[in-house]
Amino acid sequence: MNKPDNEHAHTENVQDHFRQVQHLLEEQALAETAALPPDLPHDERHELLEKMLHKRHLTELRKKLDELHSADVAYILEALPIEQRLKVWNLVKADRNGEILVKLSTTVRESLIARMSRDELRNAAEHLHTDEIADLAPDLPQNVMRDVFKSLSIDEREQLRTAMSYSPDSVGALMDFNMVHVRENVTLEVVSRYLRRLGELPSQTDHIFVVDHDDFFKGVLPINMIVVNNPETVVGKLMQTGSIRLNPDEKAEQAAHSFERYGLISAPVVDEDGKLLGRVTENVVLDFVRSKAETSLLNQVGLRGEEDIFASVWKSLQNRWIWLALNLCAVFFASRVIGSFEDTIAMLVALATLMPIVAGIAGNSANQTMTVIVRALALGPRSRTNVRRLMYKELKIGGLNGLVWGSIAGLFAYFLYYSVPLALVMTGAMLLNMIVGAITGMSIPLVVHKLGRDPAMGSNIMITAITSSSGFFIFLGLATIFLI
Amino acid sequence: MNKPDNEHAHTENVQDHFRQVQHLLEEQALAETAALPPDLPHDERHELLEKMLHKRHLTELRKKLDELHSADVAYILEALPIEQRLKVWNLVKADRNGEILVKLSTTVRESLIARMSRDELRNAAEHLHTDEIADLAPDLPQNVMRDVFKSLSIDEREQLRTAMSYSPDSVGALMDFNMVHVRENVTLEVVSRYLRRLGELPSQTDHIFVVDHDDFFKGVLPINMIVVNNPETVVGKLMQTGSIRLNPDEKAEQAAHSFERYGLISAPVVDEDGKLLGRVTENVVLDFVRSKAETSLLNQVGLRGEEDIFASVWKSLQNRWIWLALNLCAVFFASRVIGSFEDTIAMLVALATLMPIVAGIAGNSANQTMTVIVRALALGPRSRTNVRRLMYKELKIGGLNGLVWGSIAGLFAYFLYYSVPLALVMTGAMLLNMIVGAITGMSIPLVVHKLGRDPAMGSNIMITAITSSSGFFIFLGLATIFLI
Repeated sequence: MNKPDNEHAHTENVQDHFRQVQHLLEEQALAETAALPPDLPHDERHELLEKMLHKRHLTELRKKLDELHSADVAYILEALPIEQRLKVWNLVKADRNGEILVKLSTTVRESLIARMSRDELRNAAEHLHTDEIADLAPDLPQNVMRDVFKSLSIDEREQLRTAMSYSPDSVGALMDFNMVHVRENVTLEVVSRYLRRLGELPSQTDHIFVVDHDDFFKGVLPINMIVVNNPETVVGKLMQTGSIRLNPDEKAEQAAHSFERYGLISAPVVDEDGKLLGRVTENVVLDFVRSKAETSLLNQVGLRGEEDIFASVWKSLQNRWIWLALNLCAVFFASRVIGSFEDTIAMLVALATLMPIVAGIAGNSANQTMTVIVRALALGPRSRTNVRRLMYKELKIGGLNGLVWGSIAGLFAYFLYYSVPLALVMTGAMLLNMIVGAITGMSIPLVVHKLGRDPAMGSNIMITAITSSSGFFIFLGLATIFLI
Repeated sequence: MNKPDNEHAHTENVQDHFRQVQHLLEEQALAETAALPPDLPHDERHELLEKMLHKRHLTELRKKLDELHSADVAYILEALPIEQRLKVWNLVKADRNGEILVKLSTTVRESLIARMSRDELRNAAEHLHTDEIADLAPDLPQNVMRDVFKSLSIDEREQLRTAMSYSPDSVGALMDFNMVHVRENVTLEVVSRYLRRLGELPSQTDHIFVVDHDDFFKGVLPINMIVVNNPETVVGKLMQTGSIRLNPDEKAEQAAHSFERYGLISAPVVDEDGKLLGRVTENVVLDFVRSKAETSLLNQVGLRGEEDIFASVWKSLQNRWIWLALNLCAVFFASRVIGSFEDTIAMLVALATLMPIVAGIAGNSANQTMTVIVRALALGPRSRTNVRRLMYKELKIGGLNGLVWGSIAGLFAYFLYYSVPLALVMTGAMLLNMIVGAITGMSIPLVVHKLGRDPAMGSNIMITAITSSSGFFIFLGLATIFLI
């Protein structure tokens, strides 16, 4: 008999939990400071009372934390500033440390690991599955990893080695080893007895795997099938042999698309020879999709990675400086472009007021083109004709936008300075720079993609750099030729 | 007995499918054009041969499409330009039209629906579950919806009305009605018999729901439990009563976080009175997370929604014009800011070359701040102290960045024009504008969030607009005071 597992006991919202923990922390801090002032009358009984109050709050907090799902504790740790985070962390039961660490973002995880002793870390890691240890491994000190490795069985060591051997964006890195397998010649009756003996199935088990005596993958048997079919049926008759199989070296992104497309809950990972290595489950995939999306958003503005919200100012500066530096180089360059037309500007100051218009709009338009291309690239490989067609379309859009907005900007310029030549130069420069923008917006993601990088990475900054320099150059250049 | 469902029969990659379909389309087009030229010798037999060839390719293509999972067909339709897309669409079996339409993006779906007759559309919709009809409803003509509605049973009409009554970003909109429920006083034996009679469980069924005779929700019974427990056990003894329940009016985003945090596969949707309304499954959630992430990326550059890659130039222009127009207004304003300092610039042209530096870097830095704040907001509500702490930190970062990059820019200015006052004005302006940037980067997402909108929506453009105008104003203003 199995008691219902309590892993999902959450009718309350995690944000309520957060508020409660924060409230307890505040009360506890209050009790703490109230106990501190030495100018209070030295009443022994009073002091004792304070201490008890302090302790009571800690006990209450500890109790609250024990009741929470480890994912909720992780959420709360992420949302707390560093001192409070450490206080909460010390109250969490040691045997839950591992599963909570696995669920934290790298930066928050590092902040906690830095405060843990070698023994505590080893103990935390030993409570985990091998695939989870592999996830933690990059953040653990080497000597701890050595201890952990020694404590594993030979099979587990092999699994850990396997899990750590794959690149972080491959299917192998998402894989776990908690799967149930059976042979194809047994009946459902036998399978049911076997499962009953196991007592509990690994989470996210929607099917069990059918393998031969050498662990070669034969097919999958959905748990639902065991329930809806006659117990005498033989596994081989029900198993699905055509279901999707993942290769450990495949891109994780591609596997995520398969999960989404076919509504998978778990999928087997099979090597080239057809041997079953492990499985990937949808919760890991969901996590991957979410963090990938976040990384794109961060990368676009040149943030290198996730930044702990409560990271020190110094850490934040380190995370952000590279693209600011690149951006500075870009504007220095743009500034020199303008500088080379100083004589022109000296003769016609109006140019200085109008030039940011040419630079700005093309940047925006180019970013739109870039976003469309990045999406098209994400949709998968397209034939040459399709890429050519798409590029042709974006060029047309750039040109049309240039005509429309260029005319408006030209009118704007005319009504300010009542000069037809100036208005025409404005319109011409807008048109040309919009086309430059379209070309830039297309080629940057295509080139970055060819190089195998995330096409969203910093492309925003590069595009703005190019379109503003070219905008200044085209506008001031045309002005020098036609107006001076 | 159940035959293994073929829904997951995909050892091949969808991209291979795409290439095959495209190849068949090209061959077919070749055969078609080869048949056209009238200057060929009018050989009857030759013509016949061509026609047969043409037909053979179509048959082959149709066969290929029939073998594909509907999600793969949807993928292929998305990736094809409009004429080829329509050709493929006509070859797809009519009874699969519905399930494929549901899986398409709105724009591609619209392009197909526009070419379908009322009968075809009604037929397509009638093959769907009520929750799927609700998803299609906004894109279907009114008369088709009336026909469909008439063809439904009373229960189904009620479900359709329910599904359509929730706002698109609420849990209600993600809900489906394909759930299995049982009473708590029956044994697993009885449940198994019942399930065997059903023959097949709805996809993504990881547990069945326990309700009383009035459909009030009591708890959930994981399918795994049925398998691993003794058949004589009563459902009430095993069911989990504390598991997560979703409210139909809850934000879908919040439900998605729960799925991610607790690794859920499906969750019950229960109304205020405790009545079971439906369920939400992880594949719908994964879809929601993915499309939400995409929308953010699009919104940031002012694209209003998903754009069919092969949409007409005209449609694309419509999708993009709003933010370009807003951006134009912003740069017109910035241009007028510069214009008000024309006299200053006329006296010192160097200012015109240096001013884009002040504007550019602060925009980049402000976008970084904005991204960090947007992420913090997504993590959930934080207490006032935390927001204040975060704002204080971002201000410090802005100030420090201003000092560092301002000094570098000051040196740059000095070595160009050998003027200490100019260099100091440069540094001062950079410092001030970086602080303006930090304030802008914080307040825009906070205000937009307070207004209940997506904080990423167009914030990029607003921030750039503000930081560039303020950059010009501060730099030229300081220059007017100290240099002229």
